[in-house]
Amino acid sequence: MGKHLGKSSIQLDEPVYIIGSASVVGKKEGEGPLGLLFDMVGEDDLFGCETWEEAESSLQKDAVYLALGKAGVKAENVDFMFAGDLLGQSIATSFGIASYGIPLFGVYGACSTCGESLALGALAISGGFAEKALCVTSSHFASAEKEFRFPLDYGNQRPLSATWTVTGSGAFVLSNKMDGKGGEFIPASATSQNDTENQGMTEVSTGVSGGKKTQMSKSVRAQITGITVGKITDFGVKDSMNMGACMAPASASTLEQHFIDFNSQPEDYDKIITGDLGMVGQRALIDLMRERGYDISAQHMDCGIEIFDAQSQDTHAGGSGCGCSAVTLSAYILKQLEEGNWKKVLFMPTGALLSKTSYNEGKSVPGIAHAIVLESITV
Amino acid sequence: MGKHLGKSSIQLDEPVYIIGSASVVGKKEGEGPLGLLFDMVGEDDLFGCETWEEAESSLQKDAVYLALGKAGVKAENVDFMFAGDLLGQSIATSFGIASYGIPLFGVYGACSTCGESLALGALAISGGFAEKALCVTSSHFASAEKEFRFPLDYGNQRPLSATWTVTGSGAFVLSNKMDGKGGEFIPASATSQNDTENQGMTEVSTGVSGGKKTQMSKSVRAQITGITVGKITDFGVKDSMNMGACMAPASASTLEQHFIDFNSQPEDYDKIITGDLGMVGQRALIDLMRERGYDISAQHMDCGIEIFDAQSQDTHAGGSGCGCSAVTLSAYILKQLEEGNWKKVLFMPTGALLSKTSYNEGKSVPGIAHAIVLESITV
Repeated sequence: MGKHLGKSSIQLDEPVYIIGSASVVGKKEGEGPLGLLFDMVGEDDLFGCETWEEAESSLQKDAVYLALGKAGVKAENVDFMFAGDLLGQSIATSFGIASYGIPLFGVYGACSTCGESLALGALAISGGFAEKALCVTSSHFASAEKEFRFPLDYGNQRPLSATWTVTGSGAFVLSNKMDGKGGEFIPASATSQNDTENQGMTEVSTGVSGGKKTQMSKSVRAQITGITVGKITDFGVKDSMNMGACMAPASASTLEQHFIDFNSQPEDYDKIITGDLGMVGQRALIDLMRERGYDISAQHMDCGIEIFDAQSQDTHAGGSGCGCSAVTLSAYILKQLEEGNWKKVLFMPTGALLSKTSYNEGKSVPGIAHAIVLESITV
Repeated sequence: MGKHLGKSSIQLDEPVYIIGSASVVGKKEGEGPLGLLFDMVGEDDLFGCETWEEAESSLQKDAVYLALGKAGVKAENVDFMFAGDLLGQSIATSFGIASYGIPLFGVYGACSTCGESLALGALAISGGFAEKALCVTSSHFASAEKEFRFPLDYGNQRPLSATWTVTGSGAFVLSNKMDGKGGEFIPASATSQNDTENQGMTEVSTGVSGGKKTQMSKSVRAQITGITVGKITDFGVKDSMNMGACMAPASASTLEQHFIDFNSQPEDYDKIITGDLGMVGQRALIDLMRERGYDISAQHMDCGIEIFDAQSQDTHAGGSGCGCSAVTLSAYILKQLEEGNWKKVLFMPTGALLSKTSYNEGKSVPGIAHAIVLESITV
């Protein structure tokens, strides 16, 4: 159960636990600043498939497989899945996760989809409708460029405001209990170290072998304690090569509403983390929040800025895509919460609601952002 | 609150009420067998817009406006909206309902989206997270043909197994209370007839003026008491001109699971209603269910078959699209429940998970179907 707060928010009376998660990324992401933290890095971006779309599907399939394994949960014991991607009719999802046979709610929120899926998964569990839920999202640089802009072979110039769609998928197993231990990916030695006093704590062991890295978690990574659901926000920006500017107003709207609904301030969070605003969008968000009376410059972090080294990787304004915030959450943010380095963060993936049809018809690019309060269970 | 039943289902301890709904359709739908029941019929399928996509957005906007009016609920009092459509990146939704400023969960389940949105809306309310939720979906013949098959100008031949995408949008206001009376669309005379004894009953008055028909409901149209969430089901059918065959296995899977989870039989329902299987899919579903030991031939009804007169309207196997089941639910199914002609029905929209990209890459067309138990509140 939970209670509806203010205009757009929900405070969960009982927290929902993230008992396992996984991140699978492409080669370029593996070479970036967070590269060593991802569970699996592809050697090329086709992942052994014949098309970019199939490759993206395989990202989701692998991320779900790893997350279930790390949580020690079998697919048949997951009640519901909440999944989506950026492609038309979410085909990366349709062909990626069908084989698990889990009842599916398909979701679409552009690059905010990770936040949306976590919000709905948390509601399903907190409402007593499910014990285990799986949330998964993905994006792929090549399938996204084809879907939204130009075929890669065309070799179009990218302005400095452009972001680079992350090739990656993040999957999260949510539970109503701190029961994430056990499972096929957990070595016996790690399991034996887990005693009752440590219940709810998480132990991470990272091993690198044969170019694939696996990270093992025995129990709970973090807890979801609150949600602010975003509204479509349209400032009339029409530039699909400047998604940061398109999404900043939506993230400001959700963030301001979050502060009002929860009666909180920027200082209440160790980090306020947007999905993929990039460097242009970050500046816009900080300015927009300052106009609203909030200084978030000390707390703000953007997954799109963290995931690439813009200078050496030529990614311009930063990373983007559903996968950007999802893999950064799994690999980096949850790690900080697990280790107790951060106690409480606001995770707010940001989405730009465009299609090539709407773009070609001269429409603007509205944005949407959903915010999730994540807290460390490390005391 | 509710309880999780069996593998895929939820029984709602407290029912969720549909306190208002509306249907907006195109010219061809208005000329069909259900034509007089729709709330608003367009004079042409552009609805005063410049593109098919904008026209579809305007369908959603109008359906939401009418549904809110009939429920007597202001947009600012709706906690969450669950909305989606068939177009790439759900742009009919992004540009259709932004102006209401309601926190949005975007959903995608192809033509099963109406069922998915009602399921999630019911969970949000039943879980205590919302008092009012709005569910809206749409499709448009011309935008869908462009999105999935050929431009209309190409004039391709349609095989007899093809369905005709319905131009229409259905919107539903869900509530935790039987508080649907009042509101701007309700004439004073109708309101004054409502006394406390009639609370929870619904009175319908239909007026036709200037080519637009409005149907007025004072209170509750029906209640949602159960949900079965579908899984992606892929029998390997690849024919995008035979969606009925693609979707029938998914509807059989959900239906069988529903009977198992609720320990029910076909006879327990006055109608078992699929979304848009059409005539080919209907035969396949009845056969597939017979193989599983269930005879649904007496109860089965398909919105796609009801909405058009296939002979005179040249629609071949029937209607399809998210809008097909949504407008049939609002205009026809809820009317039967309201009037007490039907006591309990299973409403199961069916979706074909394809995109032109996946189709062109030779992929199959998997299906998904979500089932909602709707009961009359008329005793």
